[in-house]
Amino acid sequence: MIISDPLRIAIEEFSRFPGIGRKTAQRLVLHLLRSHQEDFDRFIESLTNIKLKLHYCSRCFNITEHELCEICSSTKRDDKIICVVEEINDVIAIEKSNEFQGVYHVLGGVLSPLNGVTHEDLKIEELMVRVENNPVQEIILALNPDTEGEATSLHIYKLLKDREIRVTRLARGIPIGGDLEFADEATIGRAVLNRVEL
Amino acid sequence: MIISDPLRIAIEEFSRFPGIGRKTAQRLVLHLLRSHQEDFDRFIESLTNIKLKLHYCSRCFNITEHELCEICSSTKRDDKIICVVEEINDVIAIEKSNEFQGVYHVLGGVLSPLNGVTHEDLKIEELMVRVENNPVQEIILALNPDTEGEATSLHIYKLLKDREIRVTRLARGIPIGGDLEFADEATIGRAVLNRVEL
Repeated sequence: MIISDPLRIAIEEFSRFPGIGRKTAQRLVLHLLRSHQEDFDRFIESLTNIKLKLHYCSRCFNITEHELCEICSSTKRDDKIICVVEEINDVIAIEKSNEFQGVYHVLGGVLSPLNGVTHEDLKIEELMVRVENNPVQEIILALNPDTEGEATSLHIYKLLKDREIRVTRLARGIPIGGDLEFADEATIGRAVLNRVEL
Repeated sequence: MIISDPLRIAIEEFSRFPGIGRKTAQRLVLHLLRSHQEDFDRFIESLTNIKLKLHYCSRCFNITEHELCEICSSTKRDDKIICVVEEINDVIAIEKSNEFQGVYHVLGGVLSPLNGVTHEDLKIEELMVRVENNPVQEIILALNPDTEGEATSLHIYKLLKDREIRVTRLARGIPIGGDLEFADEATIGRAVLNRVEL
């Protein structure tokens, strides 16, 4: 075949990314190949840095350079309101709406028996420990409104319902079956304001 | 802002890729962040390798690990027919059609006065030297059928028309205004077969 091995391997590696097909991967690799060496080096360094410098916040499992993330260590945030999300993308999306002043808890996924993702694979126990040891008043379950997100919300709700904690979910401003990450900021903001009692 | 510097920088770097918006860049970076260290290292290595091992074929400016690319060094290819293309993507696309048995010449772009791309920025002189020193019978101008591609085809045609060389372009099976890279293999193959005299 015409494509030499290093090119083919790089294209295959890029094809592993979610949402990146073979032709897009090829376009990205050829772009890199054409780029100046200093641009290329800066790109590689930026990727190496995220692996070297970033890790999970020990409290909420958001991404941070420090022991605690900026949100957990901020004195301006209300740590009595915890917003439970699936992934770090969702933290970024909700922060952009500027409607939420509480703190987060990143589960790292949702329950998915078919894919072998169970209670133990998610940061659910860690959430329970936070609730146990802190005067939490409200848990907002901000999971994606699809089947797995709903099942996970219900699972966490059952674990929390005997406690003196308000459990809410985001208002149904977000289209059902959609992905939280791709909702616009106004929609996410309104959904935070109109969150409803479970 | 909530996004820490290493994350923000990596997202900005990914956003520089053609066709990659900010949200896609964020998704790619977070995917890398979540990936296992060995997968991450393999990805970085594959990219480093394309820069280390690959360079331009000294004859046709295709990409290769050697002095000459596989096509230029193959004894099965007819080096009296040269197919002139804009980018390496186009070599890959035409090769996939399996209809072309000649060799290539990669210009590295098209004439674009508005973007400051002139005759000297492309491998046009190198094409003339090839034509001068080799018994070339036919030049196929396989540039994208848009304004800049057409202008570049015409420019090269004028440089070649006083020589005893057949100058052709791909048949108009390719949709006008479309991108060669995204045409399907059957269409590209038919366009090679039905190439017409300029």
